[in-house]
This record gives sequence, structure tokens and C-alpha cells, in this order.
Amino acid sequence: MASAKPDLHGVFYPNSVAVIGAYSNENTERLRWTGWLQSLGFKGRIYPINPHASQILGLEAFRSVKDVPGSIDYAIIAVPRAAVLPALKECIEKGIPTVHIFTSGFAETGRPEDKALQAEIVRVIANSNTRVIGPNCMGVYCPAGGLGFGGIMVGSEAAREPGSIAALSQSGSGMDSLFIPGILVRGLRFSKVVSMGNCVDLGMEDFLEYVAEDDETKHVFCYIEGIKDGRRFFEAVKRCAARKPVLVLKGGMTAAGARAASSHTAALAGSGQVWETLYKQARVLKVDSFEEAVDQLVALARLSETRGRRVAIVGRGGGPAVASTDTCERAGLSVPLLADETRRKILELLPAEGSCLSNPVEVGITGRGRISEHYYDVLSLVADDPNIDILLIRINLEVPARVVRIGDEQIKEYVDIWSRAARSLPKPLAVVFDRGEYWEPIQLAYRMREACSKAGVASFPSVESATRAIAKSIQYYESR
Amino acid sequence: MASAKPDLHGVFYPNSVAVIGAYSNENTERLRWTGWLQSLGFKGRIYPINPHASQILGLEAFRSVKDVPGSIDYAIIAVPRAAVLPALKECIEKGIPTVHIFTSGFAETGRPEDKALQAEIVRVIANSNTRVIGPNCMGVYCPAGGLGFGGIMVGSEAAREPGSIAALSQSGSGMDSLFIPGILVRGLRFSKVVSMGNCVDLGMEDFLEYVAEDDETKHVFCYIEGIKDGRRFFEAVKRCAARKPVLVLKGGMTAAGARAASSHTAALAGSGQVWETLYKQARVLKVDSFEEAVDQLVALARLSETRGRRVAIVGRGGGPAVASTDTCERAGLSVPLLADETRRKILELLPAEGSCLSNPVEVGITGRGRISEHYYDVLSLVADDPNIDILLIRINLEVPARVVRIGDEQIKEYVDIWSRAARSLPKPLAVVFDRGEYWEPIQLAYRMREACSKAGVASFPSVESATRAIAKSIQYYESR
Repeated sequence: MASAKPDLHGVFYPNSVAVIGAYSNENTERLRWTGWLQSLGFKGRIYPINPHASQILGLEAFRSVKDVPGSIDYAIIAVPRAAVLPALKECIEKGIPTVHIFTSGFAETGRPEDKALQAEIVRVIANSNTRVIGPNCMGVYCPAGGLGFGGIMVGSEAAREPGSIAALSQSGSGMDSLFIPGILVRGLRFSKVVSMGNCVDLGMEDFLEYVAEDDETKHVFCYIEGIKDGRRFFEAVKRCAARKPVLVLKGGMTAAGARAASSHTAALAGSGQVWETLYKQARVLKVDSFEEAVDQLVALARLSETRGRRVAIVGRGGGPAVASTDTCERAGLSVPLLADETRRKILELLPAEGSCLSNPVEVGITGRGRISEHYYDVLSLVADDPNIDILLIRINLEVPARVVRIGDEQIKEYVDIWSRAARSLPKPLAVVFDRGEYWEPIQLAYRMREACSKAGVASFPSVESATRAIAKSIQYYESR
Repeated sequence: MASAKPDLHGVFYPNSVAVIGAYSNENTERLRWTGWLQSLGFKGRIYPINPHASQILGLEAFRSVKDVPGSIDYAIIAVPRAAVLPALKECIEKGIPTVHIFTSGFAETGRPEDKALQAEIVRVIANSNTRVIGPNCMGVYCPAGGLGFGGIMVGSEAAREPGSIAALSQSGSGMDSLFIPGILVRGLRFSKVVSMGNCVDLGMEDFLEYVAEDDETKHVFCYIEGIKDGRRFFEAVKRCAARKPVLVLKGGMTAAGARAASSHTAALAGSGQVWETLYKQARVLKVDSFEEAVDQLVALARLSETRGRRVAIVGRGGGPAVASTDTCERAGLSVPLLADETRRKILELLPAEGSCLSNPVEVGITGRGRISEHYYDVLSLVADDPNIDILLIRINLEVPARVVRIGDEQIKEYVDIWSRAARSLPKPLAVVFDRGEYWEPIQLAYRMREACSKAGVASFPSVESATRAIAKSIQYYESR
């Protein structure tokens, strides 16, 4: 193990990858490592390693990495636990610089024999030139490098597109079942994702130091269960957070959570108090779930730097508008009266009958799916109001989606207005969809949110999630 | 106005209804009051009132309620504001006991002339035998009586089925765009809903007194913006809450919310502090949004009285399981270790490799949509564990729904297991679906939740919403 600070560039951009333990059954391997590399358009050489096959998914297969004629930059070990150590030794002999061990069943089981096997991995790689990711993890997803993992990427155009979000995670399923799909659906894209499991060698500290310097990464999310070197981690996260926003979800903040973390990645979780202090001192953004991390990144990436907390709520009125006002204020935002001048101008455009125009402002999609011809003009007046810092557009589709057919043309009409407003108006704008209950509104909201994502408009699945994310963003920008 | 305590039975079960201001355009009126009554299967006589039509939607129309030959039990005034007062006077002359004024544009606009018009309504009904609901509201929905409102009910079988939830609301759109669809989709049904608007006559206090005594009502939800008679309200809510669970969502708890409430129903909101005291003294359940009210009622109605806080989390493992453990603990629940005996028995059924079995318990739907043959047996072992009070089944469909086709047969297979477990096992059980991101998992989760609702299984849209509702239920039962 090299003692110098590792240059991890090659981890994300290898020219050749060996899949040790590729299945000869191609229907299986298509939804596994070899298939994922092909599906992501990996441009280098892929070497399936399988002692009983000569070809897998159109690629020449080899008995061992040692039989591969050229050099190998990156190996994925996906064999049964008992075969991991021999495979790793061959990788070291071959001089492969990065090895990702997918296989699980090591220290995380808590059994002495499994812990001993993990210790043996540590011993074997010591003094070698091979760095290890894992075991018990999904490894690297880097669209620009063509590396990736998980069923979520199969046939996904979005997954192949590079972007600017990095995720460093001690959970693989948190990535492929929650975080990666959430980010992709919102129209954001990844620079690098690392699922690092038990971290026998490369760990959170190494990757944090790397993404801090990585120009392609603009925002960083960390899911952490435990760290090896507290001081180094603290320095790394502080340095990274000084350059770009870093979000941290700490699994095992509670006593029971810490126990669960230990049987997941064998991590020592550390006390919640220590972490709370770290959040403050390192100026990282604390999030409490993978879903919240997605919402928070949408707020950071899609809303321009907001420093004011004064929200205008625009949408249908009534009790839900009142409840949303309370939700805003509880999140630490405010919902002030519009200036007299603004209200006067809005009154010139809209019939005042029964509607509240002072904030919340009652204009938008009606119960029958229609939209006021003055919608954009009203958004524009609200955005010019000196009392307002940010616009929150509330959309409830429950009634219109059940009563009338709202087609692609109307969806385009709504989203075009929001998109134009988000681009042209002087204040940031977020669209919030109420939780749908019936099938039709859920379907319609999905299509509208998809269109928002494509148009670069920030959208959120509830007033609660939107206001929480916006309030934390403002707090973050204020603290800098 | 009768000074004796009103018997409101007739409000919910009239034998005849007049729709004053029915449209002669039948395509419009079909999605309006006359159509809603027909759609809900109102069994008595419906009299559309329109000066220019002889027949509307197959019913004989009349110029005025005074031209109707028989008596009328209930009138809906849905005419332009200027015509409200004359219509109301005719209702009084006709001796109609209940009049619902749908029309808005009264005190809630804040304009002196509109306030004066509302004062005139109050003056006109004084000393009459006519009671008024409204103005500025949707009135009554009572499936057993065939009364109802809103697009959400059109063509809905569920909306016609009577049940045991009452909702008393100073918001109509909160009912038809959030609360009613939420409750119906979860498989629960209504006894009575009242949207009461500006409450010039009948108000929250009257209806609370009524539903307290109403045997058909088992649970009560109130959305309140302001009340007229604080002492009477407090006595009514306390008496009702002594008999059945009462949930209160107070709109305008914050200063800005109170201002928004005043321009919605002209209500004086009262201070948040006073309300917090009331929640405690009257032992009502406080909720913060319409969505939370739905989740809370699912917990109360679908989970048997739980008094213990010890949760077993059953589902896929990894980071999301760790994060869910933290979420449980933050909500005031606990996630204890299973008893040694239970773990030993589970180990006999499941291969231990890499899975955490001590709680969270890693068993359920795999990444490829398969289900362990021992799933039910494991649930049964967990439910028998002396350390556990309640089972939380976590389902994440993001990966399986994108990778394989999960058909009706498999949905039935999953839901049958949960349904059998909910019916047979000695501890309550809730199924929690992670927030879906991609289209396929959202669709699949919707179908599974629908099947859960039909089978009477409690389901929730997130770990956060489930644990919040469960913790409040336990707190409620403990306080009694």
C-alpha cells in the first residue's frame, strides 16, 4: 500500500476493466457487471474472467487476469467469498492498480472467521501497488469514464450523461435504490459516485480529498456510517466544504442506528454529539435521509444563491394555501404581505372576487385545468416585489386531473411559463407538487415534474420538502 | 335562529334538495351540484332552480323554490353574489330548514361592502327557522345521505360508500384536493364531511357537538381557521375527544398563516400558544398538514391500539435500513435487538450471508422482484418476539421495477402475505413504500398501495410519515 497520497484519477477513468466472476449465462451477465459496463458505453477493453467460458456478451473471456495479454487498470472481484483472496492475489501479481471487491460476507457479519478473512485482505495488499475499494460494495459509477453499477442504469440515457454531483457512500443500495434515481429524475447528473463498503483500504477520507480537487464536481453528498481516521476525515471534509457544498447523511446517529450500521459495514459509528459539532465546524449541510439529500441538491443546484427568506406562495388558495404558509414559517421562512403597489397592479389583471392576492397569491391552474392568461404577468409582478426573495409555486392536480383530460400540450404550456419565469425573472422560483393520491394526478404530476427537470426548473414533491431544502440552502449561503 | 341546540340530523339526511342556480347547460351542470347529487345516488327529490329552464339533467326545473309543489329539506345557493340574499329570503319563506350558501365574496374579501352583505345574511336568518352553512364553502358530503360535492366524487364508487370518518373543515379545497382523495385512496370511508366557510350561523362548535354523539362517526378531523365561541368550542372538542379520537389541523398557527386565514374565511385565528394549550387539555391529536391528517387516520383506523414503541424494521438492508432506524428513533420509537431465540430461529430459515437479522431484519422483495419463501414465517417469528410491539415493512421498488416486470400475480402474492400477517399475527403491521423516483416504481407502488387499501393493510408513503403517525397514535393511546 503506497503511503503517499494516492492519485485517484485512474480509479474513475481506467482504460481496461476485468470482471472477475463474470457469468457465462449471458442473460444473467447482461444485468450484471459486464452488461452494466456495456450499457454505460465503457470505451476501453472489458475482460470477462471465467474459467469455463471463451466468450461472454461478445467479449473474449479469460480463465484468469494473468491470462489477459495486455495490462489491466481496474478489476471487479465478483466471486464467492472463498474465492476472493486468490483472485485478489492474482490481481496484485498482474499489477492491477485498482481492485473493487463486490463480494460481501466479511467483517460486517460480526463472525470471527469473516473478520479474519477481511484482515487477510488487508495483509495481502500491504506493500503492494494495488488499492482496494470494498469489500461489500458496488464500487464506482462515473459516467464520463463509462464505469457504473446497478439495475437502475440499464437502458437509461440519463445515467450515461456526465454531470457535476459526486456521491461518496458507505451504502450501495442507498445509491441505486434512492439517491441515484432521485438525482437523475430531477434532471441532475453525476461526476462520480463511490459505494465503498467496508473500506479496508480506500475510504471516505481518500475520496473526499479527491473530489475536493476535482473540477468536474460542484456538489458533494456523503453517506457515512463510520470513519477510520477522524482527524484526517475532519480536515478533508472541511477543506472540501470550503470549496463546494458538502451534504452529509450520517447513518447511525441514534444508538439503534449505530448498531444497525455496524452489522451493515462493520463501521464504528461515533456519537451523534460529535457529528453535530462536526457539521457546524466544517460547515457541511446535514441531511436526515437519502430523499432529503436529493431535495437539498435540487435546491442548491437549481435555485440561484438565495439569501433572503421572504417567500411568495403562488397557487390555488383556501386551506391548503393557509397550511402552506404555516409550513413555510415553521421551516424558518417568512410569507410577508406583498407591497401595496404590487397588489394594485395584480388587481388590475385579476378579478378580485373571493381570491386572496396579498400572499399567498391565488392564481394558477384551476379546478378544471385552465390557466389564467395573466399567469406569467402575475409571476413577474410578484418577482419584482421588493418584499419578496423567492417564489414558491404550489400545484395541486387532484381535482383537475380527475375532471378533465390534461394533455401534453397543456403540460407544455404550464412548464413553459415556469421555465420562462425561472430564466427571466430576478428571483429564484421553485415548483411544488402536492402529494398526489389518485392515479391520474400522480401520473400527471410525474409528467410535469419530468418536463420541469428537462427545462431546468426546480421542482419538489411537497411543500414540507421544498421549504426545508430552501431554508437550509439560505442558511448555508448566509454562513459563508 | 333557534336558540335551542340544533338537531342536525336533517342536515345530513334530507329527503329533498333544491339547487338554486343550476345551469341549464347540462354538460356544465353534470360537473356541478345537480350532477354531484346524481352521481352520489341521492335517493330523494332534486329540484334544479333556474328561471330559464324547464328541465335539467332529466329533472323538472323550477323558476324559484316557491314554485316547488312539495316541501324542501335542503337548499344549495349557487348564484352570483348579488342574487344570494333574495334567494335566501325565498328559502326562509318556503320554510327550508337548511340552506348551504356556496357563493363566495363576503367578509373574506375584507371589503366593507362585502362585510355588510354578510351582516345582512345574519340579520335575515335571525328569528327564522332556517339554519345556514357558509357562505364561501362546499357544504355537506354524506355518502349515506347521498349529499356531496366536488369533482373528486364524479364516477367514484369509493365516494358513494359510507364509513366512519368525519371531517369538519373551514376549507373546501383542503377537502376535495387533499383530504378526501387521500382518505378514499387509503381504503377508508366517510360518515360526514362539512366544509363550512365563513360560518355565519352553523359553525365548528355545532358540528363538533353533533359528531360527538353520532354513532356512525368513529374518528374526527377538524381543519380550523378560527372559531366564534372559544369556551363553547373548547367544551365541544373536549367532550368529543373523550369519546373518539379528534385530530386538529389549525390553519394560521403562525402570524403569516393567521393573516392568510383571515383573507380566506375571515376567521380570527387566535394565537398559536392558546392552541397548543388546547391540544393538551382537550387531548386532541395535533397535525400540521392535510397529508399528515390522512396518515394519522390510517394509523388510528388500521393499526390496532399499539401502546409499545418497539419497532421491528423488515425489508431490504443496507444504508436505507440504517437511515430508517435513525428515523424511527428520532420519531420517539425504538428499534431494539430481537431476542436471541428469535434470531436463532430466523437463522434456521434464512442464509445468513451478509444480511442483518438482528433488527432491521433483511428479508423481503429482492432487487430482482423475488420474495423469500420464508417471508411469512420470518414475519411471524418477529411478531412473536417479546422485544417487539409493531412491525414496519419497508418496500423499495426502484430497482426491481426497473429491472423486471412485476405483474398482478406477484403484487397479489406480496399483498396476500402482508394481509395474512396483519390479520393473523399478534402485533400490528404497517407497510411503508419508499418515495418512488422513476415512473415504473411509482406505478408499481401505487398498485401495491391500492391492493393494501382493499385488503385493509395500513400503508404509508415514507418511513418519516409512518413513524410520525405511529408515534402520535401511541402517545394518544398512552394519554388515555
